[in-house]
Amino acid sequence: MKQVERLNWIEKVILEFYGEKPVAPRLVETILYSVQAGGKRLRPLLLLELLEGFGVTLTEAHVQVAAALEMIHTGSLIHDDLPAMDNDDYRRGQLTSHKKFGEDMAILAGDSLFLDSYALVAMAELPSQIRVKLIAALSKAAGTFGMVGGQVLDMEGESRSLNLTELQTIHAHKTGKLLAYPFVAAGLMVEADNTIQAILQETGEWLGLAFQVRDDILDVTASFEELGKTPNKDLVADKSTYPALLGLEESKSYLAMSLDKVEEGLAALEEQSAFQADKIREIVESLRLHG
Amino acid sequence: MKQVERLNWIEKVILEFYGEKPVAPRLVETILYSVQAGGKRLRPLLLLELLEGFGVTLTEAHVQVAAALEMIHTGSLIHDDLPAMDNDDYRRGQLTSHKKFGEDMAILAGDSLFLDSYALVAMAELPSQIRVKLIAALSKAAGTFGMVGGQVLDMEGESRSLNLTELQTIHAHKTGKLLAYPFVAAGLMVEADNTIQAILQETGEWLGLAFQVRDDILDVTASFEELGKTPNKDLVADKSTYPALLGLEESKSYLAMSLDKVEEGLAALEEQSAFQADKIREIVESLRLHG
Repeated sequence: MKQVERLNWIEKVILEFYGEKPVAPRLVETILYSVQAGGKRLRPLLLLELLEGFGVTLTEAHVQVAAALEMIHTGSLIHDDLPAMDNDDYRRGQLTSHKKFGEDMAILAGDSLFLDSYALVAMAELPSQIRVKLIAALSKAAGTFGMVGGQVLDMEGESRSLNLTELQTIHAHKTGKLLAYPFVAAGLMVEADNTIQAILQETGEWLGLAFQVRDDILDVTASFEELGKTPNKDLVADKSTYPALLGLEESKSYLAMSLDKVEEGLAALEEQSAFQADKIREIVESLRLHG
Repeated sequence: MKQVERLNWIEKVILEFYGEKPVAPRLVETILYSVQAGGKRLRPLLLLELLEGFGVTLTEAHVQVAAALEMIHTGSLIHDDLPAMDNDDYRRGQLTSHKKFGEDMAILAGDSLFLDSYALVAMAELPSQIRVKLIAALSKAAGTFGMVGGQVLDMEGESRSLNLTELQTIHAHKTGKLLAYPFVAAGLMVEADNTIQAILQETGEWLGLAFQVRDDILDVTASFEELGKTPNKDLVADKSTYPALLGLEESKSYLAMSLDKVEEGLAALEEQSAFQADKIREIVESLRLHG
């Protein structure tokens, strides 16, 4: 399947979910404004690519799980941008949700995305014993034991300088858990054995780390046009980032090393299962910085 | 089982869930501050009472589903109190979450409660085909098609006067869906047939309506000490409430009628199934206003 077809399918699933006679049309409008803001959809695409790598013919159910993941990610971005949080006016080159619809609507749009996403997984046409595992893993990756927990650590860390281990712990939770979820979920859906599941999890965690290091580097080096948001914001706020901690060159090496680890994981999967890593390797390569 | 045992069991399940090595202890502290603020736990108690009414011997799994429901309710209260929403300083006689911990922490505590709750249901020791139905129904009751959708309608209605149908639609979603959930969930857990499930749903919806009318009436008639929050807030804000729309006496009749409908539903359940309604009837009676 082509990338654009996967992207359209993910969007179609979310639109159909919210197309069901809405209670409050303005809420749905607010939600879809952020869902359709043109993100890269890295997380859901990774999940679909991984499933195809395992030789799975994609069905609506797989796309529903992928869409649920994207919905939680989108909800977290809306709340991250709020005045009481990062207080950002722009995201992906357009006004943030609270700037466009008001702070109350932005809070509720994020809440809805969090609360709604699980219905998509719960109603997907997959064996119910797989659905409950997918939901438990998603919930743990997103809430107190995952993304939100990491977000709180990140806020607490802003007032002091962190060491590398602390920075990694923050990002392993704040962004790592949801970025590793496609690997975990793909393993659950193909009913991978424990060995394969462990490799998937570890590979996903390395990819999550790489993605964060890359984001920190781009924040220093990219312009507004490239980022779609105000650059250098982290340095201005004196936040602990990989470039601030390691320097720019060392951060680039660290990114390259993390991506190597991902590719090692992919090679191990190819060796120990029927997994074909070509497409995922393309995504990993696209994360490398050149020059 | 005694009421106090049920209350302790619900609290124990939530504490154990958050006892699992926390990523960010401050986040767990913020969450538990609101969870332990001494609410009546009407929703989870209703669920446990209903199950016992069906002759079910309660297990940890039932309490986990009840706890998940209470967690979503608590998260919604934290967000309702935020400055951008109702801007309340007190809830249940203590400082609101954002007053105590800051607005950013309050946003994240609510987010966590929403995201975490589903893991409790997904991991409960119940047949997985029942768990997925419980999760789908909870998600629909809480998010865009339930509580959050109703919250948005409520906000949109503040700028104009509403008729009775509009007011009912708002409350049927904003508070009604989560209050009806114990009835829906009990039916799913005892694998009730469609007829019984329909009576359960309708009875729960009447109870939800009654609860909202009662809340509106108390807001006019009760003092700060009785409510644990600033009274008359709705009238001051010129919000559409049942007393504002129907007058106080008519609202009281409307409450009595709604509670009668609940009791009719309970009688129908007793007639058509092995359900014993005594305990639920006590709860319903406790909602009647005297004098």
